[in-house]
Amino acid sequence: MIILGVDPGLRRTGFGVIEARGARLRYVASGTIVVPPALPLHARLKVILDNLREVARDARPDQAALEKVFLNANPASTLLLGQARGAALCALADCGLDVQEYTALQIKKAVVGTGRASKEQIQTMVRHLLSLDGVPAPDAADALACAICHAHCAPLAGRLQALAPGTLSASRGRLRTGRLVS
Amino acid sequence: MIILGVDPGLRRTGFGVIEARGARLRYVASGTIVVPPALPLHARLKVILDNLREVARDARPDQAALEKVFLNANPASTLLLGQARGAALCALADCGLDVQEYTALQIKKAVVGTGRASKEQIQTMVRHLLSLDGVPAPDAADALACAICHAHCAPLAGRLQALAPGTLSASRGRLRTGRLVS
Repeated sequence: MIILGVDPGLRRTGFGVIEARGARLRYVASGTIVVPPALPLHARLKVILDNLREVARDARPDQAALEKVFLNANPASTLLLGQARGAALCALADCGLDVQEYTALQIKKAVVGTGRASKEQIQTMVRHLLSLDGVPAPDAADALACAICHAHCAPLAGRLQALAPGTLSASRGRLRTGRLVS
Repeated sequence: MIILGVDPGLRRTGFGVIEARGARLRYVASGTIVVPPALPLHARLKVILDNLREVARDARPDQAALEKVFLNANPASTLLLGQARGAALCALADCGLDVQEYTALQIKKAVVGTGRASKEQIQTMVRHLLSLDGVPAPDAADALACAICHAHCAPLAGRLQALAPGTLSASRGRLRTGRLVS
């Protein structure tokens, strides 16, 4: 399974592609889409749209994963980030990809083992888990971490979805199909 | 000049197309993209992306205009709206359109003559200005109002941009090229 992870932002959008074969992970590609800040908003979003579509067409991922947003206290910043996320989600959906979203807490736990991990710890663990020669840039590392998180969670979510509806309702609401990873 | 106005929203996105020949306005088309709420987020954004691209390809507008966002006090709502705006802007940019944004105040002033206009007054004035047989639905009316606002503002903005840079700086900062309509 090829997984494309994305960490969207209006200034920089990180992406990371990995291949998951069971528990074995292999690095495929990663990078950062740097958006020229002087462009008008629609042109900046088009940079994200075009570049992510190109990444998806080159890497031919089977699934995509996105980091859920940390809601900024500043509404204007939240709006800008929302628009960047909209462009990233459009690019992935435009390539026919299904997108799963994960919180920063889920990603940190999956990659570092604790929800209190620092940026540097994520970069170090991403390097270790994918046997990279060097530490990836922060945005690319976040995107790769998101893809790694999906590689860990997707098989379990898939097995849960494969169960007949109602099978899990017997567990008295402790588990619901499709909600275990949310 | 054919103008496509858009009023983006994650549940309903209004669109309206008009033709402007000098001060004369002609209605071309309008409608509302209703997004199924049960779909996952990326699929909902794809509905906006696909349908707006179809509208733009059918109507072949020269320019596009969007209503600027009213920043909601609820960050989660602002994020959702931002994502819908991102999808709408991507659709327009993907069709090679330049997008101009206007505040609700600018649109109300352009259409009704006052910034305190109600939804109903906008609908009534849009019907009157475009000689429609009936009152358009609220989202479509807002989109048409945005297109009408652009038809009023674009010629002035165009004349300002045609002036050599620096021509307006002589006015001691009261006017700056490209900022008169913002």
